[in-house]
Parts: sequence; C-alpha cells; structure tokens
Amino acid sequence: MARRARASRARQTAETGAPASPHIQRRLPFFDPLDEEQIATLEAQVDWIIQDVGIAFRDDPVALDLWREKGARIEDDIVRADAAWIRDLCAKAPSQFTQLARNPERSVIIGGPHQVFAPIYGAPFVRDLEGGRRYGDMDSFEKLVKLAYLHPNLHHTGLVIVEPCDVPVSKRHLDMLFAHMTLSDKPHLGAITEMSRAQDSVDMAEIVFGADVMENNCVIMGNVNTNSPLLVDKVVTEAIRTYCGRGQGIVVVPFILSGAMGPVSTAASVAQAMAEAMMCCAYAQMIRPGAPFVLGNFLSSMSLKSGAPTFGMPEPVISNYAIGQLARRVGLPLRCGGSLTASKIEDAQAAYESADSMHSTMLAGANFVLHSAGWLEGGLCTGFEKLIMDADRLGSYQKVLSQGLDTGDEALARDAYGEVAPGGHFLGSGHTMRNYQTAFYEPALSDSENVESWEEGGSKDMRRRAYERWNAMLDAYEPPAMNQGVREELAAYVARRKEELPDAWY
Amino acid sequence: MARRARASRARQTAETGAPASPHIQRRLPFFDPLDEEQIATLEAQVDWIIQDVGIAFRDDPVALDLWREKGARIEDDIVRADAAWIRDLCAKAPSQFTQLARNPERSVIIGGPHQVFAPIYGAPFVRDLEGGRRYGDMDSFEKLVKLAYLHPNLHHTGLVIVEPCDVPVSKRHLDMLFAHMTLSDKPHLGAITEMSRAQDSVDMAEIVFGADVMENNCVIMGNVNTNSPLLVDKVVTEAIRTYCGRGQGIVVVPFILSGAMGPVSTAASVAQAMAEAMMCCAYAQMIRPGAPFVLGNFLSSMSLKSGAPTFGMPEPVISNYAIGQLARRVGLPLRCGGSLTASKIEDAQAAYESADSMHSTMLAGANFVLHSAGWLEGGLCTGFEKLIMDADRLGSYQKVLSQGLDTGDEALARDAYGEVAPGGHFLGSGHTMRNYQTAFYEPALSDSENVESWEEGGSKDMRRRAYERWNAMLDAYEPPAMNQGVREELAAYVARRKEELPDAWY
Repeated sequence: MARRARASRARQTAETGAPASPHIQRRLPFFDPLDEEQIATLEAQVDWIIQDVGIAFRDDPVALDLWREKGARIEDDIVRADAAWIRDLCAKAPSQFTQLARNPERSVIIGGPHQVFAPIYGAPFVRDLEGGRRYGDMDSFEKLVKLAYLHPNLHHTGLVIVEPCDVPVSKRHLDMLFAHMTLSDKPHLGAITEMSRAQDSVDMAEIVFGADVMENNCVIMGNVNTNSPLLVDKVVTEAIRTYCGRGQGIVVVPFILSGAMGPVSTAASVAQAMAEAMMCCAYAQMIRPGAPFVLGNFLSSMSLKSGAPTFGMPEPVISNYAIGQLARRVGLPLRCGGSLTASKIEDAQAAYESADSMHSTMLAGANFVLHSAGWLEGGLCTGFEKLIMDADRLGSYQKVLSQGLDTGDEALARDAYGEVAPGGHFLGSGHTMRNYQTAFYEPALSDSENVESWEEGGSKDMRRRAYERWNAMLDAYEPPAMNQGVREELAAYVARRKEELPDAWY
Repeated sequence: MARRARASRARQTAETGAPASPHIQRRLPFFDPLDEEQIATLEAQVDWIIQDVGIAFRDDPVALDLWREKGARIEDDIVRADAAWIRDLCAKAPSQFTQLARNPERSVIIGGPHQVFAPIYGAPFVRDLEGGRRYGDMDSFEKLVKLAYLHPNLHHTGLVIVEPCDVPVSKRHLDMLFAHMTLSDKPHLGAITEMSRAQDSVDMAEIVFGADVMENNCVIMGNVNTNSPLLVDKVVTEAIRTYCGRGQGIVVVPFILSGAMGPVSTAASVAQAMAEAMMCCAYAQMIRPGAPFVLGNFLSSMSLKSGAPTFGMPEPVISNYAIGQLARRVGLPLRCGGSLTASKIEDAQAAYESADSMHSTMLAGANFVLHSAGWLEGGLCTGFEKLIMDADRLGSYQKVLSQGLDTGDEALARDAYGEVAPGGHFLGSGHTMRNYQTAFYEPALSDSENVESWEEGGSKDMRRRAYERWNAMLDAYEPPAMNQGVREELAAYVARRKEELPDAWY
C-alpha cells in the first residue's frame, strides 16, 4: 500500500512538473524594510494598546476569570495587561513547530525559515469555466480537496475550501473533515464555528493519529478571526481552549479593513493586529504553555467609490512586509497574505492583484499562507481555474524562496567560458549539458510558444488551459493509501454525530 | 499656452486618479538579498571576466585603438583590462543624473533613490481588442506615444513603442523622434541602429533644447544591446561616441537568455552582464568622463519544451534582486526588468508574469525601467490594453516605493481609539475623516464592486475596461504646448533628411 502511494505521488510530481516538497525551506533572506526607529514606534503602539487601550474578551466569563486570576486588569470585559508580561507569555509559544500529516512525508514545519501554502478558506460560492458561478456543494468541495491533495505546490489543504451549502451547517464540519482525512493525506485544519465542532475536529484527529501521538504533537489546527477592533469573542477563546488545551495549534487572525475595523492607516492597523493577536497568544499560553500559535494578519484597503475591500494594493503589500518583520521579532510563526483579488473572474485583474499580494507574502516570510490559491471576489468565491493557476505560480515562488541565488562553483560556470567564443552560444557547452534540466522552473500553465504555435493549438488563454488541466488531474485522481480500520472508525464517528445533531441551516 | 498645458495636465491627473510625479522618489528601502560572501564571489567573477576572459570589441578599429592607447591588453579584437582600472573608470560616471524634458516639470532623475517608468521598446507587432494583431504602423505608433504622454504613471516615453513598419527603416527614426518631440513633452530616447541615426537624434534634440543647454545637460539617451556573450559591436561603440561624445546619456544592456548567450546559471549570467556593461561604461568614460551611463540588464529564462524565452519566472526575479545590489555597489544607475510576459494576449498569464517581473524590478531599485508597460509575446507585440493595464499597476508600485510605511503620529491614529469602542468601527472617526481621501491607492482599472454590480455593468473583464479607457484617453488628447518655431525647425530637419536618405526596408 505504501509502495502504491509512493508511485502515485511520483506520478503527480511528473504530471505537474514541479518538485514535491512538504514545505518550503527558505534560503532567500527576508525583506525587512522597517528601520530601528520605526520598529520602536510600532512596538510602543502595540504595548500602548495592550496596556492602556485594552482588548475586550466578550461573552466568555471563563476567559475573563483566567485573565483576572493571572493578574490582568479587568474593567467590564476589557482586559488591560502589562505589555512585558504579555510578551513573556508569547515567548512561551514555539517559534516553529511541526504539524503532522497522516502521511509522514507530508508533515509540515510552520515557523522560522519555512513556508507552507494552503488553498482558499471560507467562500460560499464556487465558479468554473463551464459550470459558471453557483453555491458551493459537497461535490465541488470534494473535487477541490482532491485537487489540493494532487497539486505539488500546495502543502496543506486548509479546511473550508468552499462551503458545502447542501449540507446542514450543524453537520457540515463532519463531512468536510471526513473528506480531508480520507481523500488527501496532507495536513489540514479543523472547525471553529462552535465549541462542539472544534471538539469533533480534535476527536476525529485523535482517531487518525491516536491519543499518544496527539499528546506530544500538533496534528490539527483551528483558524479563527478576532472581531476587530479590539474584540475577542468566545468563538476565539473556546477554540483556543479546545485546540490548545489538547496541545494542538491555533491560528488567530485579526481581519482589518483599514478605515472600518481599524484606523485608516496601515501602520496603526498593523500595530492593532499585532496587539489583538498577541493577547490571544498570551491567552493560549495561559491555557497550555508551549501550545503552537500562529500570529495571523489580514489587512485590506478600501475602494473610495464603494467602500468595498480591495486587494493586491500598495497598502496591504506594505503591511505584509511590516508584519513579517514584527512577527519575527516576537518570535511567532506568521500567517498573512495570499493570492487575493477583488476580481469576479480569472482575468488579468485577478492575476495582477494575486501576484502582487503573493509576492509580498513570499518576501515577508509568511509561514502559513491560507488563501494562497483559488480566491476570487474578495473571498466570496472559489475558482477551480483560479486554484490551479495560482498553484502553478506558487511553484515559482517556491523556487525563488528555496534556492535564492546559488553562487557555488558550478553556478559560476567558469569552465563554460573556455568553450564559448565571444558572440558564440552556450547551448552545447558541457556546463549547459550538465545543468539545463534543472536550471529553470517549468510552469505547467504558462504558454511560451510563438504566436503561430499558440494559434494552431486553439488560441487558448490561461483560463481555458487551467480548465483542461484540473479536469485531467481529477480524471487521474487516486485516493492515498489509508488504514481501513481508521477509515471505518471515522465514518462511524461521522454517522453517530449526524444522528445526534439536529439539522440546522444557519 | 503654459496655463493651458497645466490645465490639461490637471485634467489628466483627475482622469487617471493617480498623483502626477515626474519620477519616483523612493522611501522604501532596497531589498538586498546577497550576503558579503556572495557579493565577493560575484565581484571576483566580474573581475575575472574583465581581466582574464576578455570582451571582444568587434568591427570598430576606432574603439580598439582607444583601448590600446589607454593601456588595455588587446589580442585580436579581445580586450582585457585591469579590473581595478575599469572600476575606477566606472566611478567617473554619475550615480544619478537628470534627463531634461522639453517641459521642465517632467524632467526625470535617473539613479540613486529614483525610479523612472517607460513603455515597451522595439516590438514589430501591435494588438488591440478590436483590431487584433497586426504589424505596427505610424498610426498606432502615434496613438501609443499619446497614451504614454497622457498616462501619469509613465514618466518617460522611450522610443520604439512599436515599430512603424509602414515607414522605410532608413527614415523611421525621424518620424518617431518627431512624434515624441511634438505629441509629448516627457523625456524620451534617441535612435541607435546606425551612427547617422544616432546623430540625427542628437541633432534634433539640439533643435529642441539648444546647444548651450545640451552642452551641460542630458536631454536625450540611446539604449543599445551588447551582443552577448562577451561581444560589443560597433553599433554600441558608435552609439556611445555619438551620445556620450555630446555629453548625452547611454543605456547599455546585455540581453542574456541563460543557457544561450550566457551559462545556464543565474549567478554566472548576472556576473557576465555586469562585466559587459562595465566595460562599456569604462569605454564611455574614456570618451567623455562624467557621461551619464545606465548599466542595463536583461536576463531571461528558457522553456525546456521549446527553448523559447520565459518571463516572470523565478530565475529573472532573483536576477533582478541580485543585479540591483551589485549595481548600487558600483554606483551606477540601473536599468532592468519590466512588465514582461510570454503570453500572446492580456490574460491571467500575462498579468501574473508581468506582476512578478515588475514587483522584483521595483524592489531591486531599477532606476530606469524600459518595458514597464505594454509588453506581450516576449516583446514581439505591443498591446494597447496591456499598456493601459500595466500602467494602472505602476501607480500601485509608485505608492509602495514613494511612501514605504508612514509611522508618524498621524499614522498612529491614537486619537481614533478614544472614539471607537471594541467591536465598533472607525468609519466616522475624526482620524478617518481627516485621512480617508488619500489613504488608499485608487486604481482606475480594478473592479472591486460586488458580483451583482459587476454583472449589471456588463460583466466586463479588465481587458474590455482597458480598451474603453485608452479610447477615452485618446478622445480627450490635446497636444502639449510647443514653441511653433522649434516645431517648424524640427519638421524642416525631418523633411531635409528624408530627401537625403534613400528608402531602405531592412
């Protein structure tokens, strides 16, 4: 069974033409644009928010009690705390940790010089070139999980790759988790929308990994938003207790549309996001010191015409650079950015915005990149073609990050200059023959042929090529090997919980 | 007349919604990914090529004689020289200089923390959404010059924005120069393909600026390629003598497709490009110490399937970062990058590749960016829509570069936190009211509306919006103010030279 899985993976790699790697081991330096004075100013702002402005922990007396017990100042539900103490608590979180995958070869390291790419999360709609735009359903959900599993440039399958709107909200998480756990063997996330759903996620992960492994390893994470500005509700604190309480990971993400959920200023919004996430990290470390925590950031700009969020714009590009530098100083793994766009379709706007968003995400050193492929319409819609197009570009970023500039002897190619005269060419030189097969990233979806060849091939734009590609990938899909006992136990868990839970559509 | 010109410019700015600026004054730090050891290794390679490998100066005895006279070692036509001497010569070139525009408000600074964007150069074909793909002609050439003049995010109009293939090759440069000099008042380039054409360019610039101004200022530049590998032909040396001999600027650009005109290695190709360009800079400084020189670099990767050049790929992205750092160490202004793509049309491929290419160009600190808008098909085709789409994105880069992250008191918005409660919003806060109008870059071509509004508007993709936009811009075009005597003198020069020159179509 293991051999079949390996053979299957080898085929996938050949199929997509990119090296399979469980995550990116970065060799390119980070881009750190802030000077010492700017860092001091921003960190003072973070500390001021933590100490003087305060952050509300709402509708969760359990959380407030713990803050009070540990010595924070509580006024109504607003928590203010000594910033040095909060930074000490954050220092208890690991600067990098491993999230185990069901297939050990696909386990990922999150933090430090590592970067992990995961697909879009949370869109209610789905779109493809032939089927058009429609509500997400379980059929498209499963196809998208299969594609995320198959694509070598995606390291992690996320969770709500699209909302399966044909399944009751109260039971949806069970079907989603079962799909991620059986159709793929990459790491994934768990549910967070209600404490019982987080609990189901952790319990199902225990079936896959076993209680012993789970006690000492991160095998699942939740991803949860604060209610910016300055508000942490019980969805967040309960998710932290459920995941971190079992030694599992949590990603906490302030979503700030500058001018609405934060001041209309990139610097202020970055500092506010740091303060909100650090308070949540401190809470997580009070629950279980050493619990894996990912500091999230999701900043967007706004259209003056309509107030709609905009993506790939200069302000979020700069915020990516800044938050990367600040997160490294606190020593926490970072989630930010993605292949983001406001475009409704997979046109040039979508690609320009996604590339600028993702290029800055890459240079910023984001360690866990949700939304790295498939995002359309400001996150309202998952695009099948967009998923495959973005993922193709992720291979390019992967090479930039993992190789940097090689200046070793072979890369200097001095022997080649003995073979080639001025005005000649290096095509047949020994150095070229030794290196040409690995010298360049070979994208699957970029057409570099001349216009005549391209027209003979039907003048297909990238969207059409992506459509053909994802269909071919699905045709070739084979499920990864799986222990049948585990699979049956998971199925039984899902069936039992579906019996217990009422259908609810909200 | 001046007032009318100012009013016209104000309209253009309002029309495109971006700040008019003659060039970018950079506040964002450069991205310098090479460590000291890598720099030393690459600089040693550059010196080795200059001293031991040598560079041929071919078919131009005048150039070889000067090298010999100044003390270089000549063997056949291969020039080898002491690397420290070459570096000393390069140090005579200014690290930044001003290229005057006919309209002084549009003069640009090239070098240092300044960045200048110019459109595509040299494509024989042109394409637009309704007219399709066809050979360039004078009609499309003039339209493209008008658009480059009108667009606030283009600082410089280049020269061969498309080849006007309906004009004889021997006379084409005259019509192109006349168009740039009369339809626009931005700075532009001169011709280089033959020494007499370079001479015409400089002579026509003298008519516009006067001999006195020209003696002490750069008012025109040539842009010329070496014949990589390691070959400088007389087109280059004659252009250097013609432009630099009159105190004008020259951009010398090794074009290296790694594996063909250089080793199949980014590090080796970068070092080779540095060596070739530095030898040309040294030659220019022997002709006239202090002559403005721009160190060019154009590196591309290759498709393994066809050997065709590829763009926006990881290797040229990394080479942009590396060459920026090396050029700053030599103290020379840099030309590299652009909005490059191998795509035949303005689809997502074109935008992904252009954005990754341009994002790295921006961070690398390229001072003069030819091909920053309009490039399709590996440079074979100028796209009307692509020009307008790319230029829209240039406004975003302009803001990233010129603003960096503002961490001043107003940007920290502390007063806003006194107005907004946890979970509230900043939409009506005093800080938002004071700042919202300038807080965000407002692109002209990105649609951020919801899907319903977008569909009501006709479901237009970015290409269709760009088509409508450039047509509207041309409809509103008014020529910039011009001294009629100068205009008549230019027209007479062009008429006389056209009489003198035979029609030649190659």
